[in-house]
Amino acid sequence: MTQQKLPDVAFMQRLAAAAAAETLPLFRSAALIENKDMDGFDPVTAADKQAEAAIRALIEREYPEHGIIGEEFGAVRQNASHVWIIDPIDGTRAFISGLPVWGTLVGLKVDGAARAGFMSQPYTGEFFVADGERSRLMRDGHSPVTLSTRKHHTVAEATLFTTTPALFGTGAMREAWDRLESKVRLSRYGCDCYAFAMLAAGFTDIVIDPGLKTYDIAALIPLIEQAGGVVTTMDGGTAINGGDVVAAATPELHAATLDIMNR
Amino acid sequence: MTQQKLPDVAFMQRLAAAAAAETLPLFRSAALIENKDMDGFDPVTAADKQAEAAIRALIEREYPEHGIIGEEFGAVRQNASHVWIIDPIDGTRAFISGLPVWGTLVGLKVDGAARAGFMSQPYTGEFFVADGERSRLMRDGHSPVTLSTRKHHTVAEATLFTTTPALFGTGAMREAWDRLESKVRLSRYGCDCYAFAMLAAGFTDIVIDPGLKTYDIAALIPLIEQAGGVVTTMDGGTAINGGDVVAAATPELHAATLDIMNR
Repeated sequence: MTQQKLPDVAFMQRLAAAAAAETLPLFRSAALIENKDMDGFDPVTAADKQAEAAIRALIEREYPEHGIIGEEFGAVRQNASHVWIIDPIDGTRAFISGLPVWGTLVGLKVDGAARAGFMSQPYTGEFFVADGERSRLMRDGHSPVTLSTRKHHTVAEATLFTTTPALFGTGAMREAWDRLESKVRLSRYGCDCYAFAMLAAGFTDIVIDPGLKTYDIAALIPLIEQAGGVVTTMDGGTAINGGDVVAAATPELHAATLDIMNR
Repeated sequence: MTQQKLPDVAFMQRLAAAAAAETLPLFRSAALIENKDMDGFDPVTAADKQAEAAIRALIEREYPEHGIIGEEFGAVRQNASHVWIIDPIDGTRAFISGLPVWGTLVGLKVDGAARAGFMSQPYTGEFFVADGERSRLMRDGHSPVTLSTRKHHTVAEATLFTTTPALFGTGAMREAWDRLESKVRLSRYGCDCYAFAMLAAGFTDIVIDPGLKTYDIAALIPLIEQAGGVVTTMDGGTAINGGDVVAAATPELHAATLDIMNR
């Protein structure tokens, strides 16, 4: 086990600010409205790359021995004890639709486990961060709030999110989703990383997203775990490498959810 | 035709502020986390009622001859030349899930037509307003921005929103939705009133929501029309009384959408 102190929240705030300088000017910009590219959504791809490059540059300068895995520029030193995992714009569809529910995700994996990370939403000024011990929402102009998941232990009490049920396909996985959805109090679609942040904050109880990559979830695992929740893949294993991800507000709710999904 | 001058934007801002004083303290509050009522979501219902009462009180004082229709307290003087139409919290599911995409909607109908109105999102500080001539986004700490819909005239270029495809049922209406969804560039679920505001702002091209009430749409019609868009029911009639609503960024796109839906 590595004994080294975790990078502090101030460093993660610098990473978020560097990313925001690249993403926020494009959000709701004329460049997006005028973009006619049917396939690439090119201005967003450019902002994505610039934001990841800015984050990587800061990490390389402060922690040159750490590894980095990013959505846009791949992996370096991924066998280091500390590896940063970056998704510069999670929720690209929300971003291009003008909705303030996308985020910049940066997680820190230490000896294979998700230990710290943040989701930053610069339009709303929200910075959801896990520092290794606790999760907090730090918002421009407001006092930090320590996050804690809601103690709804049963599926019947739960609010459930997924990005879109289309991700479950049409086979057994979709049947499992439909079975779960029929038992919850409320289900809702959309919102990508924002739904996971709301789970950490106590306003949503279950989030299920199939087919995630490591950079879609690495930052969100410590945010949820350090607020009291549980995140695994559908078979109960670690979600640090992505996969079909199930996050729940309590261990009891997580077990009940897996039980229904895997029945 | 009534010649009377429309109430000004400052008055609508006062309505929004009065509603925000009731809604914002509850948004992401401990009261919501602790609420165990499975049916009524009671704290939200209370905020809904208090916000509508505050709006109605201001209208009664300034414009006692105007009519009022509200989600929570029904109708008074609804045959007046001027009628205000209120939904204190549109997007209750977003509200209770902690997502900043709900809104307070107030529309003004004059001689039967939607002439002015606003959507207010107090957490993000956004105030989307139509004053009778133009639509603007006024945001705390930022200069007002005049809104204009995007000029994507074809369905193949369009981004499409609906609250959830479940609203279309399982019959011909769902087939019509699936047909349309298969032809667009991008489709997305969720977001209620916020999707209509993004259409007015040029970031989304088509929004379809079946089974709306007058208070779900009255405020949004002038916002979209005065930004260059078109809002009707599925059969091409006025949407001021609600119904199956189709909003599109341009007349051409609106015609093409109805054509596909009604084929």
